[in-house]
Amino acid sequence: MNTTSLAQLAAQVRNLLDIEQIKNLKHRYFRCFDMADIAGIAAVLHPAVVLDVNGGIYRFRVEGREKYLDMVREGAHAEMIMQHNGHHPEIDIVSPTQATGVWYLQDSVWEFRRKLRITGAAIYRDRYEKLTGTWLIKHIEFQRIHEIVEPLEQPPNVTFSYLATHAKKLPPGELEAYKKE
Amino acid sequence: MNTTSLAQLAAQVRNLLDIEQIKNLKHRYFRCFDMADIAGIAAVLHPAVVLDVNGGIYRFRVEGREKYLDMVREGAHAEMIMQHNGHHPEIDIVSPTQATGVWYLQDSVWEFRRKLRITGAAIYRDRYEKLTGTWLIKHIEFQRIHEIVEPLEQPPNVTFSYLATHAKKLPPGELEAYKKE
Amino acid sequence: MNTTSLAQLAAQVRNLLDIEQIKNLKHRYFRCFDMADIAGIAAVLHPAVVLDVNGGIYRFRVEGREKYLDMVREGAHAEMIMQHNGHHPEIDIVSPTQATGVWYLQDSVWEFRRKLRITGAAIYRDRYEKLTGTWLIKHIEFQRIHEIVEPLEQPPNVTFSYLATHAKKLPPGELEAYKKE
Repeated sequence: MNTTSLAQLAAQVRNLLDIEQIKNLKHRYFRCFDMADIAGIAAVLHPAVVLDVNGGIYRFRVEGREKYLDMVREGAHAEMIMQHNGHHPEIDIVSPTQATGVWYLQDSVWEFRRKLRITGAAIYRDRYEKLTGTWLIKHIEFQRIHEIVEPLEQPPNVTFSYLATHAKKLPPGELEAYKKE
Repeated sequence: MNTTSLAQLAAQVRNLLDIEQIKNLKHRYFRCFDMADIAGIAAVLHPAVVLDVNGGIYRFRVEGREKYLDMVREGAHAEMIMQHNGHHPEIDIVSPTQATGVWYLQDSVWEFRRKLRITGAAIYRDRYEKLTGTWLIKHIEFQRIHEIVEPLEQPPNVTFSYLATHAKKLPPGELEAYKKE
Repeated sequence: MNTTSLAQLAAQVRNLLDIEQIKNLKHRYFRCFDMADIAGIAAVLHPAVVLDVNGGIYRFRVEGREKYLDMVREGAHAEMIMQHNGHHPEIDIVSPTQATGVWYLQDSVWEFRRKLRITGAAIYRDRYEKLTGTWLIKHIEFQRIHEIVEPLEQPPNVTFSYLATHAKKLPPGELEAYKKE
């Protein structure tokens, strides 16, 4: 058996703790996102976070935590259901304060007002930064694997929706269509 | 570089091992549940386990491992398919024998006798206890994010079902409807 | 508090690092598989890998990395979408170079040429081997929990498909039907 010094061991354990903290960070992000928990999302984002999304029917880029939160405040509402699940994390700790992550996203969104159902999968390529002892999401890049958009002429039989009672009510009228900027 | 003592390191490693064991515990639970493996489920539950489920079309509470297993023996049968996947674990080790966990459940159940398909997502809030060296599930609280119930007039083309050959056969007749107690 | 020696700690940390590496290995496998990344798949497979699949409408066995890669080169094409997600890892490190893993697979495949949609779940039982410092997938056994095959008369409204532009184009004509060998 070869021997490992205390300092080597401490570095390995630090690595494992950082990986677990970053997985938790992203897990909280998904939970808070689908429940439109703005304060919860704010707590996992870096002040200078950049989001770069390249979907099938939309493309957009958001810079800064405040604009990110505005996007969620605007986008999440009572007449939709969202499900975003991050699978297969591949986390690399690059330095004591920098890390990268790859995730396989499965997403499913019902938009009752827009009469659309969007389902798909994507690869997330993230960068994380540790600020004053806490890992935060610094950069998110979203590359589609597939996306399917189906018309939703009749809403399904929704027997429970958290967003219906916890997210903002929409004013009457049509929502803006998605666009590839 | 700051130094970490052997005792500090041992505590950090203990924490990581506990987290991994608890994830495994819940992973076995889901695997055994969807395959109606009663002995496998019994092995992951605390004798005093409490299950508190607040779904869209059902609400119930079960107290104690024997009643929990009775519920599975009653509920799982050959004319259904169940899929329960636990995503995004957020595990906190509270003491050497107490821990909590948050999970994001995705569930999909086809009930051919009841002619229903139920799909949804929920947040699990769990408590775990270590008894004689083994982590067990002590308390499960289930809060819906969304639930959709669709009629299943015609069963789909099922080309394989483990429960069809491994779970109990139903007597003829209708099953009791779900209810919110 | 009981004390843990440096050597005991090093063994526990080695175990945790191995588990994390094996999870990453399988996560990369799924990502590369659904994107038909042959080089990426080659990098995670043992030269003597065995794949033993027992599905609902197909059964096959592949021996050796080259035949495995041939199978992917043959099977992945521009007129399909694949989604394979591995949940609930239960990894056991058996020795410094041998490990086992159990995973809960959720799979969804759209075959536009065959006009089929196959969805299901399965248990993977894997064996891993560490070769010159790198964990590789050595043996994969696939046991179905459920499988549903639906006709796909009309393709859905696919608004993005990575395989459509990155996988091989099919020659005209019908594809061979699946078979249980």
